[in-house]
Amino acid sequence: MPTPLDAIRAGTTIDPHKIGNLLFDPGYREARIRIASILGNDRVFDKSLRPHLNHRQLLHLSLRIFKRLLELRDAHGWSDLEFTLACRLQGETLPTSLHDAAFVQVIASQGTKEQQAYWLPRCKRYEVVGCYAQTELAHGSNVRELETAARFDVTSGEFVISSPRLESTKWWIGGLGVMANHTVVQAVLYLPLPGNPLEYKSYGPHLFIVPVRSLETHEPLPGITVGDIGPKAYGGFGTVDNGYVQFREVRIPRENMLMRHAQVMLTGEYVRPAHDKLSYGSMVALRAGIPVNLGWSLARAVTIALRYCIHRRQFAVTPDGPEQPVITYAGVKHRLYPLLALSYAYIIAGRELWAMYQKMLEEVQRGNLESLAEMHSLSVALKVGSSTDCVRGLEEARKCMGGHGYSHMSGIGPLFANATASQTYEGLSRTPSHHNPSLPRPTILT
Amino acid sequence: MPTPLDAIRAGTTIDPHKIGNLLFDPGYREARIRIASILGNDRVFDKSLRPHLNHRQLLHLSLRIFKRLLELRDAHGWSDLEFTLACRLQGETLPTSLHDAAFVQVIASQGTKEQQAYWLPRCKRYEVVGCYAQTELAHGSNVRELETAARFDVTSGEFVISSPRLESTKWWIGGLGVMANHTVVQAVLYLPLPGNPLEYKSYGPHLFIVPVRSLETHEPLPGITVGDIGPKAYGGFGTVDNGYVQFREVRIPRENMLMRHAQVMLTGEYVRPAHDKLSYGSMVALRAGIPVNLGWSLARAVTIALRYCIHRRQFAVTPDGPEQPVITYAGVKHRLYPLLALSYAYIIAGRELWAMYQKMLEEVQRGNLESLAEMHSLSVALKVGSSTDCVRGLEEARKCMGGHGYSHMSGIGPLFANATASQTYEGLSRTPSHHNPSLPRPTILT
Repeated sequence: MPTPLDAIRAGTTIDPHKIGNLLFDPGYREARIRIASILGNDRVFDKSLRPHLNHRQLLHLSLRIFKRLLELRDAHGWSDLEFTLACRLQGETLPTSLHDAAFVQVIASQGTKEQQAYWLPRCKRYEVVGCYAQTELAHGSNVRELETAARFDVTSGEFVISSPRLESTKWWIGGLGVMANHTVVQAVLYLPLPGNPLEYKSYGPHLFIVPVRSLETHEPLPGITVGDIGPKAYGGFGTVDNGYVQFREVRIPRENMLMRHAQVMLTGEYVRPAHDKLSYGSMVALRAGIPVNLGWSLARAVTIALRYCIHRRQFAVTPDGPEQPVITYAGVKHRLYPLLALSYAYIIAGRELWAMYQKMLEEVQRGNLESLAEMHSLSVALKVGSSTDCVRGLEEARKCMGGHGYSHMSGIGPLFANATASQTYEGLSRTPSHHNPSLPRPTILT
Repeated sequence: MPTPLDAIRAGTTIDPHKIGNLLFDPGYREARIRIASILGNDRVFDKSLRPHLNHRQLLHLSLRIFKRLLELRDAHGWSDLEFTLACRLQGETLPTSLHDAAFVQVIASQGTKEQQAYWLPRCKRYEVVGCYAQTELAHGSNVRELETAARFDVTSGEFVISSPRLESTKWWIGGLGVMANHTVVQAVLYLPLPGNPLEYKSYGPHLFIVPVRSLETHEPLPGITVGDIGPKAYGGFGTVDNGYVQFREVRIPRENMLMRHAQVMLTGEYVRPAHDKLSYGSMVALRAGIPVNLGWSLARAVTIALRYCIHRRQFAVTPDGPEQPVITYAGVKHRLYPLLALSYAYIIAGRELWAMYQKMLEEVQRGNLESLAEMHSLSVALKVGSSTDCVRGLEEARKCMGGHGYSHMSGIGPLFANATASQTYEGLSRTPSHHNPSLPRPTILT
């Protein structure tokens, strides 16, 4: 017997395959079907168990998931693209996601050729597992006031990394809680004054690779206090080990400063980058990926809600008449249809933004910074727009399902739990304009 | 050294004690301090462990909490009011909350004197632990279409309770998942046609007390399929065992129908209630309590956010000047102050509504239905207003705290997780007005 959904599908004049061509790269759907069927046979990817786990259990699970994905990658000879697809299909944000999206990326874009040659193969083998430590307890948006210090010791040729006070603790660092053995640390570079090696001068935030856990025992290294910051609101990112770290005079070799642009010589001499925005490019990466991801998140929620509202009947319009599908109610369809359109808008715009970002990245690597300003504005605008609209849309879609939307099993709750974080990460959605309007607005979105 | 909060408190011209007199009943604050100090010494009430537990662990914990509360009640000779206060102070919604707020209430208002004399003492001793089963998988808002059947067997003088199909399964029933041994069931009453005992006629939904689990073993009774529906969105009501139940020809004595108003005689004869709205009064109870609770929920969130934003500094307004408290930013204070005002508004209006409800209940018991219509309108309006405003306000307050608001430990996430359910329970916040505007709107809020 055809379901109500079958009936509606049979009546459409739209060719779903053509829509698919708009939304997906060529070959994507075929690869997805192939990989999904592999994951579907493996109990570790069973999504029905996850809602019943606590944060610690979820972290165990996500590490097991990732290990299994690596095994499958090797067994099936997956390409990088296929592996990324498999990571996405299992449905949870993995603790390793920032290893690839931030740690590896920042070494690739800010590291010298020698640094890349040393670190990237180790990263690829997951011998070195890393994360990206920028935010501190007391400073997030105002990057210029970060307090973690990297003092250069000319005598030994090492940097000494330290957290001056409790508030300087690196906090929220994805992948650091239980998994990473290395982190890129954003720390203020201090170099001795020429002629007065006991006095230091600040050169502002720079990037350093710091080992945090033993490669043998995975125990914290000397001088390192590291751990998980605990559950996030709404159970969001429950499979990710956001962590904290404090440094007590931790010594790292000079070669661990990422020196593609700015450099510190053995003598303690500072070599300025050719252009002070050269280090900016890769920082846009995380933001440029947000709109397309939120668009897909909303698309999934709206798909769930639409299917439910086509099946669900409630209230007759004539006495003793049949109850009507909820989707026929104005108060439901006039909320869901615009959200469906919105998800298309952000997926399409987000794909375009990502393509522009890739193009800009190539240009920046060649020293051409022309498109940086436009990329900055666009990525900020689309990030704010997509996070505001999609998060609101997710709750709206959930509420269109009435009581059943409030079950974790409706699937929309977990989407909202992750998506709403986008309103406060990678730059607040609202710039805190100060009470004195004559003052310039702080550019917290850079 | 005075904290920033101390400085602000020292500068106020408002007498907090006077504000307290407005918000609390006389003696409430003293009792709260006394009871909080008792709970504070007991590890079972330690709130720091809860974020790390999964649904099953939370259910275990909340049962332990409730058991301990009963022991403390007896040890300290608490009054009902003090016990209620202790239940509130421990901070979680308990599986037993609907035992008192719905099961006991409905017996007290819909049961005969004999039924009350039989059931209420057993409820008070928690020998009988109950819940209230109205919503079904396929019907929530449209109560008139509920399918669970209560057929009267004249031969044995029993009702036969049954779930005609999967969609008739009672679903979402708070307290039923693991705890209750009884439930009040809203079921359609079927009585044999006079002169034709094989044909039955429907008399619409009525209320029946049905045992679901053995008083000895706590195992499901014959004909009963019962269990927990699993986690809710955002981890909301994680300490509550919302459950489901199916009935396969479950026989209960005629005396288990709540017969204060409508009655079924031994002969199968139906005696109409004096007034068809007589059973309505107690159904407003759950809704009438919503605005004040949401007002307090928002008040807690805004208090957290204000304190944080007074301490948190970010960005200087002059080069090299000190960073400013976030609360001084227009974009923060102009969001938080109106939310503070809103919480006062809903607490005060909600207290008034609750007082009106208590008064109406007394009048209804005396047969005076005059204030029913106004109470209905007011409770619906304030329910919709408070749930829309307070839920939005909770997320807004959380976002004013930037990244740290997204930690579960900020305390706002759990408030939102519970509060947002109010937009879809006890009547949807948006009436699904049908696409044909000439038709009357379904009165789903009754």
